[in-house]
Amino acid sequence: MKAIEWLGNSLRILDQTKLPMVSIYREASTYEDVAEAIEHMEVRGAPAIGAAAAYGFALGALTYTGPREGLADHMEAVYNRLAVTRPTAVNLFWALRRMQDVLREARDMEDLDAIRLRLVEEADKIAEDDRRMNRLIGQYGNGIVPEKAAILTHCNAGALATVEYGTALGVMRSAHAAGKDIHVYADETRPFLQGARLTTWELMQDKIPVTLIADNMAGFLMQQGKIDLVVVGADRIASNGDTANKIGTYSLAVLAQAHGIAFYVAAPTSTIDLKMPSGQDIPIEERQGKEIREVFGVPIAPPDVQVYNPAFDVTPAKYITGIITEKGIVQPPYSVNLLKLMVRS
Amino acid sequence: MKAIEWLGNSLRILDQTKLPMVSIYREASTYEDVAEAIEHMEVRGAPAIGAAAAYGFALGALTYTGPREGLADHMEAVYNRLAVTRPTAVNLFWALRRMQDVLREARDMEDLDAIRLRLVEEADKIAEDDRRMNRLIGQYGNGIVPEKAAILTHCNAGALATVEYGTALGVMRSAHAAGKDIHVYADETRPFLQGARLTTWELMQDKIPVTLIADNMAGFLMQQGKIDLVVVGADRIASNGDTANKIGTYSLAVLAQAHGIAFYVAAPTSTIDLKMPSGQDIPIEERQGKEIREVFGVPIAPPDVQVYNPAFDVTPAKYITGIITEKGIVQPPYSVNLLKLMVRS
Repeated sequence: MKAIEWLGNSLRILDQTKLPMVSIYREASTYEDVAEAIEHMEVRGAPAIGAAAAYGFALGALTYTGPREGLADHMEAVYNRLAVTRPTAVNLFWALRRMQDVLREARDMEDLDAIRLRLVEEADKIAEDDRRMNRLIGQYGNGIVPEKAAILTHCNAGALATVEYGTALGVMRSAHAAGKDIHVYADETRPFLQGARLTTWELMQDKIPVTLIADNMAGFLMQQGKIDLVVVGADRIASNGDTANKIGTYSLAVLAQAHGIAFYVAAPTSTIDLKMPSGQDIPIEERQGKEIREVFGVPIAPPDVQVYNPAFDVTPAKYITGIITEKGIVQPPYSVNLLKLMVRS
Repeated sequence: MKAIEWLGNSLRILDQTKLPMVSIYREASTYEDVAEAIEHMEVRGAPAIGAAAAYGFALGALTYTGPREGLADHMEAVYNRLAVTRPTAVNLFWALRRMQDVLREARDMEDLDAIRLRLVEEADKIAEDDRRMNRLIGQYGNGIVPEKAAILTHCNAGALATVEYGTALGVMRSAHAAGKDIHVYADETRPFLQGARLTTWELMQDKIPVTLIADNMAGFLMQQGKIDLVVVGADRIASNGDTANKIGTYSLAVLAQAHGIAFYVAAPTSTIDLKMPSGQDIPIEERQGKEIREVFGVPIAPPDVQVYNPAFDVTPAKYITGIITEKGIVQPPYSVNLLKLMVRS
């Protein structure tokens, strides 16, 4: 199961809007193709968006047919197009900046093909780094999973949200591989149903026990003592530890604290945005009302009903027990400890 | 808009599983028809279930063709069939017991038709009482609604859940009629989508401003200061004030308390079950996994995924600011004040 795969001249993207019913791929051969795939959430999940955008940037150079001196302007347009696809996940901007830095280093190179090669190499490196980081997140995360544990997760922070293995689901894969008796409860995660469609599917393929619930059942399960631990992914982590993640994460965090249940965020350090002092500054994407009014094109509400559809929310740091990264688990106070982590090589 | 209507020899039931896309009616002419309509949730909502079951009981006598001496046994079978349709809402049992009492009073009557008439009269009285009580709940409830208020509700405790007017939505109707500037936020209420399908539709018909949100967005709205008040219905209230209501209500109550937002339950006193010492004793109906795996027959998850689908949860009394009834608003301590309310005529 690969969310994205580089084929040399194009990026093969598994269309996650159709899963798990059908597996359809988009073969993105232009940066516009990649931008659309990100916008339509065919590829989603902060780390996967970052890697896809990097390849999209590389495609911008690969498909460029103009003269050498026009490349910089063209690539600025490529950057701007990819940057407006999704505002909340910081990995997108992090990956695009890494690509821009490579382009800047190559500003004295005359050979267009050599520049293209450097950009593809960098995108490959971003993807490879993501694979490696997720394995490390899994290893560190396994340390906080008891021998027997019911773990609640929200949305999909799995292999499908990354290049491979997953962040929150990487923790579960790692615990399962270590022989622990874990059972995952997956919130269905309306409106886009990433939990119902993607998390269950991923875990079932790996034979990790999973039970699907509606989002509004999480509190009841906690009340009944059925949840030992909550682990979710992240789209952006501010320097004080405030974490933007899929809408509904904040409610889970408040509920977990009310029930004395540990609440962990699993994310690579590329998700940490030290320039954001707090979660209040993180832009929250609002998506079309149609996503709520319809499910797979089937109307579930009056067609003209007013809808509010924020795609993310921000969980204040005080609700977060720890942040599991590829460099280790960060604990409060986050303002100090995230900075320490980021300067550590 | 009438959830149920007695037509003299049959009960006309608006099939709420199809709303708001199509308005289809079931004309129930036997008690079995009524039992099926309740089981399939064509008629739902605690007060509406109570009234429908009462008419179903009357239909059991109307369609009985045997000798007078066999009536008691037959009606016991009718009672038992209707009683197993939905376990959580106490109004079902309350209404059936009222009907049984009438039958018992008529035990010396020889004329079958006279008995039938008495039963239909009692069902009419239950329906009429419900209409009257909802108006009173609305009037009392209006007292706790500020001049300008954003009110969050869950599921559908409206005209469609009652014989007319509604309980929680009755409060909103009453506040709106009083000229208050209210805006309702309706949780979509997975898996059955009563909020998306029914609450929005009802309120839009009455031109009461309403915005639909996914269940997992409620906490985020509270965090942003967008909710002034939560008002929900109830399926059963224990003598200590613990309240069973649609799954997801408990999560809302915990979130409301964490944000210092008042959380009210609106229900007729027929929902109060003094024989239940606490919410722990209330049976929680678990429904088919299909309701979560599919939306209107469209699969949204792997077909063989394990699912947990409790239909209700119990909100401990400590989270409830007040219980709005037709006799007034009850405040803590509920163990004392609910008893006082119930003995008051």
